[in-house]
Amino acid sequence: MANPRKAPEIISELAAEFAGTLILILFGVGVVAQVVAGGLGDHDSIAWAWGLGVTLGVYTAGRISGAHLNPAVTVALAVFKGFSWRKVLPYSLAQTAGAFVAALIVRWNYADVLAAFDPGHTFKSQFVFSTMPGNGALPVGIWAAFGDQIIGTAILLFLILAVTDLNNTAPAANLAPFIIGLIVVAIGMAWGTNAGYAINPARDFGPRLASFLTGYGTAWRDQYGQLYFWVPIVAPLIGGVLGAALYQALVGRYLPITEEPEPGRVPTGPEHGPA
Amino acid sequence: MANPRKAPEIISELAAEFAGTLILILFGVGVVAQVVAGGLGDHDSIAWAWGLGVTLGVYTAGRISGAHLNPAVTVALAVFKGFSWRKVLPYSLAQTAGAFVAALIVRWNYADVLAAFDPGHTFKSQFVFSTMPGNGALPVGIWAAFGDQIIGTAILLFLILAVTDLNNTAPAANLAPFIIGLIVVAIGMAWGTNAGYAINPARDFGPRLASFLTGYGTAWRDQYGQLYFWVPIVAPLIGGVLGAALYQALVGRYLPITEEPEPGRVPTGPEHGPA
Amino acid sequence: MANPRKAPEIISELAAEFAGTLILILFGVGVVAQVVAGGLGDHDSIAWAWGLGVTLGVYTAGRISGAHLNPAVTVALAVFKGFSWRKVLPYSLAQTAGAFVAALIVRWNYADVLAAFDPGHTFKSQFVFSTMPGNGALPVGIWAAFGDQIIGTAILLFLILAVTDLNNTAPAANLAPFIIGLIVVAIGMAWGTNAGYAINPARDFGPRLASFLTGYGTAWRDQYGQLYFWVPIVAPLIGGVLGAALYQALVGRYLPITEEPEPGRVPTGPEHGPA
Amino acid sequence: MANPRKAPEIISELAAEFAGTLILILFGVGVVAQVVAGGLGDHDSIAWAWGLGVTLGVYTAGRISGAHLNPAVTVALAVFKGFSWRKVLPYSLAQTAGAFVAALIVRWNYADVLAAFDPGHTFKSQFVFSTMPGNGALPVGIWAAFGDQIIGTAILLFLILAVTDLNNTAPAANLAPFIIGLIVVAIGMAWGTNAGYAINPARDFGPRLASFLTGYGTAWRDQYGQLYFWVPIVAPLIGGVLGAALYQALVGRYLPITEEPEPGRVPTGPEHGPA
Repeated sequence: MANPRKAPEIISELAAEFAGTLILILFGVGVVAQVVAGGLGDHDSIAWAWGLGVTLGVYTAGRISGAHLNPAVTVALAVFKGFSWRKVLPYSLAQTAGAFVAALIVRWNYADVLAAFDPGHTFKSQFVFSTMPGNGALPVGIWAAFGDQIIGTAILLFLILAVTDLNNTAPAANLAPFIIGLIVVAIGMAWGTNAGYAINPARDFGPRLASFLTGYGTAWRDQYGQLYFWVPIVAPLIGGVLGAALYQALVGRYLPITEEPEPGRVPTGPEHGPA
Repeated sequence: MANPRKAPEIISELAAEFAGTLILILFGVGVVAQVVAGGLGDHDSIAWAWGLGVTLGVYTAGRISGAHLNPAVTVALAVFKGFSWRKVLPYSLAQTAGAFVAALIVRWNYADVLAAFDPGHTFKSQFVFSTMPGNGALPVGIWAAFGDQIIGTAILLFLILAVTDLNNTAPAANLAPFIIGLIVVAIGMAWGTNAGYAINPARDFGPRLASFLTGYGTAWRDQYGQLYFWVPIVAPLIGGVLGAALYQALVGRYLPITEEPEPGRVPTGPEHGPA
Repeated sequence: MANPRKAPEIISELAAEFAGTLILILFGVGVVAQVVAGGLGDHDSIAWAWGLGVTLGVYTAGRISGAHLNPAVTVALAVFKGFSWRKVLPYSLAQTAGAFVAALIVRWNYADVLAAFDPGHTFKSQFVFSTMPGNGALPVGIWAAFGDQIIGTAILLFLILAVTDLNNTAPAANLAPFIIGLIVVAIGMAWGTNAGYAINPARDFGPRLASFLTGYGTAWRDQYGQLYFWVPIVAPLIGGVLGAALYQALVGRYLPITEEPEPGRVPTGPEHGPA
Repeated sequence: MANPRKAPEIISELAAEFAGTLILILFGVGVVAQVVAGGLGDHDSIAWAWGLGVTLGVYTAGRISGAHLNPAVTVALAVFKGFSWRKVLPYSLAQTAGAFVAALIVRWNYADVLAAFDPGHTFKSQFVFSTMPGNGALPVGIWAAFGDQIIGTAILLFLILAVTDLNNTAPAANLAPFIIGLIVVAIGMAWGTNAGYAINPARDFGPRLASFLTGYGTAWRDQYGQLYFWVPIVAPLIGGVLGAALYQALVGRYLPITEEPEPGRVPTGPEHGPA
C-alpha cells in the first residue's frame, strides 16, 4: 500500500501500531482501575471493555498497519503469513510504547482513587496494570499460568486467522474489528482465571513498566515472590505460533482459494498488514 | 464445493467440524469452570461466552462443513434440507471428538482451581463439564429436564433455519455466525433453568466422557442417582427435528423462492453444508 | 409480494406474525421465569433476552409479514405508513395468539420451579407472565404506569421508524432486526421501572390470559386490587401513534427521498410489511 | 444535501440534532433514574444503555445533520473537518434543548420513584441528571474531574474520527452508529470513575437545568460545595479538539485517500454532516 503522502511507510505503520495499542490499553487498564479502585463494575465489565478496546484499536490501526497491536500476533503472522521479519521488532516496540503511554495516562488520571484504595501501591492494585497468577479466587502456580497463557494466546491467534481469512467466511462490511473484539470478550470470560489473560506481551510489559516507574515496587514478581514478568511475554509468543499452526492444520489448508477480494474492499485485520 | 487441494472432501469437513466444536467447547466448558471454580462471573457470563463460542466456532467451520457443531443440527438438516445421511454419523463423531478434546484442555488447564474448589471431584464441579437437571435454585425432575431439552433444541433449530434461510431475511456480509451466537445467548438466559441448556449431544457427551476419564465418578448419573447422560443426547435429537418441522410449517413453506445467491456470496450456516 | 406457492397471502402473514411473536415470548416470558423462579440472572438478563427475542422474532417473520409482532406497531403503521386497516385486527389476533401459546409453553416447562417458588401462584410470580405497576423497588400508581406505557411505546415506534426508514440511514445487510432488538434492550434498561415495559398489548394480554387459565387468579388486577390489564393494552396503542407522529414531525418529513432500494434488497422491518 | 421538500436546511438539521439528542438522553438519564431510584440494574446497565442511546440517536439524526449530538463533537468538526462555524452555536443549542426536554420527560415519568427514593431532592439523586466528581466509591477533586473530562472526550473524538473516516476502515452497511455506541459503552466502563463521563456539554447542562427547574437546589455545585457545572462544559470542549488533533497526527494524515464513496452509500456519522 503505497502511501501517497510521502511519509516512509514504516513510520506510518509504527504510528498506527502505537495509536491502536494506546487505545486498547486506555480501555483495558482503565476498566481494571475502575473496577478495582473505583468500585464500578465487575469481571464482566473487564471482559467487555477489553474486548471493545480491541475492536476500537483495530478500527484505529487496521487500514495502515493491519492492527496487530500484539507482538504475539506480529510474530505469528511473520511465521505463517509472510509478514516481514524486519518489521517484527519495530512493530513490537511501537505496540509496547503505546501500551506504556496509555498506562501512564490511566495512572495519572486515577492517581487519587488508586492512592485512596491502596496507599502503599502494593499487589492490591498492581494487577490494575499487569497480570499475576491466580486471577480468580484460588491460588495458581507459575507453571499453570505459563501453560494457560500458551493456550489462551493459541485460541486468540487460531480465531484471528479464522475470522480474517478471506478464503473462509470473514465478516464483510468492515465489521471484522467487531468480531475480533468479541474473541477477546470470550477469552476474558472463559480463560482469565489462572493468569488474567494477558495473551499479549506488549499489553503486559508496557503497563508493568509504567507501574514500576510510578511507585509500584511490586511490578516484577508475583504475589509469592517469584520473578513473573517474563511469563506473559514468553508464553504468548509460543502460544500464538501454536494457535496459528493449528488453524492452518485443521482449517486453513482445506479452504478453497477464493478469487481476489473485490476492488475497493478495504482489507481489515492482522493478516492484511502490509508486508 | 470441490476442494482444489485434493484432500478427500469428507476429511476436510470432519476436520472443520472437529475444530469448530473444539472452539465452542473451549469457551463453553471454559466459562463454566471460570465461573464455578474461579469465582469470576455469573450465569450471564456463561450465557454470553457460550453464545460467543458458537459464533466463533461457526466462523471457524462455516465455509468448509457448514458448521453444524451439533448432532441435533446435523440430523435435522438431513431430515429437512437434504444433508447426506451417510455423513450424519461421521459428522456427529467429529463433533463429539472436538468437544471431548476441548474439555480435556479445560480440565488440564484448570486442574489446580478445580482441585482447590472441589477436591473430591464431585457433583459440586461435575456440571462444569456436563449438564444436570435443576440448574437453577430449585429441584427439577428428569422428565421435566427431558421435555425442556426437546423445547430448547426445537427453539434452536427453528431459529437456525430462520436466520440462515436465504429466502427469508438472512443476515448478509457474513454476519450470520454472530446472529447464530445470539440465539444461544438468548436460550442460555431464558431456557437454562431446568437442564442447563445442553441442546447438543456432542457438547454434553464429549465433556462428560472427558470428566469421567479424569476423575469424576459422578459423570453418568444425576444428583439424585438416576442414569441421566442419555437425556441430553436423546431429547435434543427429537427437539431439533421438531423445531425444524415447525419452522417449515409456520414460515418456510410460505416464503417466496429467492433467486440464487449472488456469485461470490459465501454461504454460511448449517443449511449450506455441502451435501 | 405475491406468494408463489399459492397460499392466500393473509394466511402466510398471520402464520408469520404468530410465529414471530411466539419466538419473542418464548424468550421474553422465559427469561423472567428463569430470573424470578429459577434464580439465574437479574434485570439485565431480562433486558437482553427480551431484546434478543425481538431480534429473533423479526428475523423469523420479517420477510413475510414485516414482523410487527405488536398491535401498537400494526396500528401505528396503519395510521402513518399505509398499512391496510383491514389487516389490523387479524394481525393483532395472530400476535396475541402467538404470545398466548408461547406463554403456555413456558408455563408448562417451568411448572415445577414455579410451583416450588410460589406454590399459591400469586403476585409473587404473576409478573413472570404479565406486567404490573411498580416493577422497581418502589410503589407506582396506576396512572404513572399508564403515562409510562405511553412514553415507552412512543420511544419504541419513533425508533422503529428511524431505523427502518430507507430515506434515513437504515442498517443494511439484513441487520435491521439486530438493531431493532437493541431498541428493546435499551428500553428495558431505562424505561422498565414504573410498569415493566410491556409496550406491546399482545405481549401482555396473551401471557396474562395464559396465566389466568393455568391457575393464576391474580391475572387481571394489580397488587393493590385495581383492574389493571387494560393499561398495557390501551396506553401502548396511544403511545405508538404518538411516537410515530413525532418521528414524522421531527425527522421523517425532512428526509430527502432516496431512490428505490436496489433490486434484490430484502426489505426488513415493520414499515415494509405487505400493504 | 439539498432538501427536496423545501424547508430551510438549517431547520431540518436543528430538528435532527434536537431529536437525536432527545433520544440519547431519554435513555441516558432514564437508565440512571432506573438504576438509582428504581433499583434495577447496576453500573454496567448504565454503560450499555448510554451507549445504545448514542447508537439510536445517531440512527435518528445521521442522515440529516450528521448526528453530532454533542457540542464537543460539533466544535471539533468545525476545527478539523470544515464544519461551518456559523452552525456551531445553533447546533449546540439544539442539542442542549433536546437534552433538556428529554430530562424533563424522565423527571416527570419517574417523579414518584424519585420522590420515594429521595424526598428532599438532594445529591442522593442529583446525579441522575448531572455528573459530579467522584462517581466511584472514593472522593475525587474538581481538577481530577476536569482532567478526566479532557481525556475522556479526547478518547471519544479520536475514536469517532477513526470509525467514520472513509479513508480508514469505517464500518459499512450503515452500521457505524452501532460501533459509535460501543465507543460510549467502553468509555462508561473504563472512564467513569472520576467524573461520571459527561464528555458532552449538552448531555450535562440540559438535564442539570431541567433538574434545577424541577426542585433540585443542588444542581450547580458539587457535593463539596464548589461551583461545578462548568467543568463538564469546558473540559469536553478542550478534550474533543485535543482528541481530534491526536487522531489527525497519529493516524489521519498517514491514510491514503480513498476514492469517493460508491454512489448510493449513505454517509453516516459526524464527519459527514452537511457543511
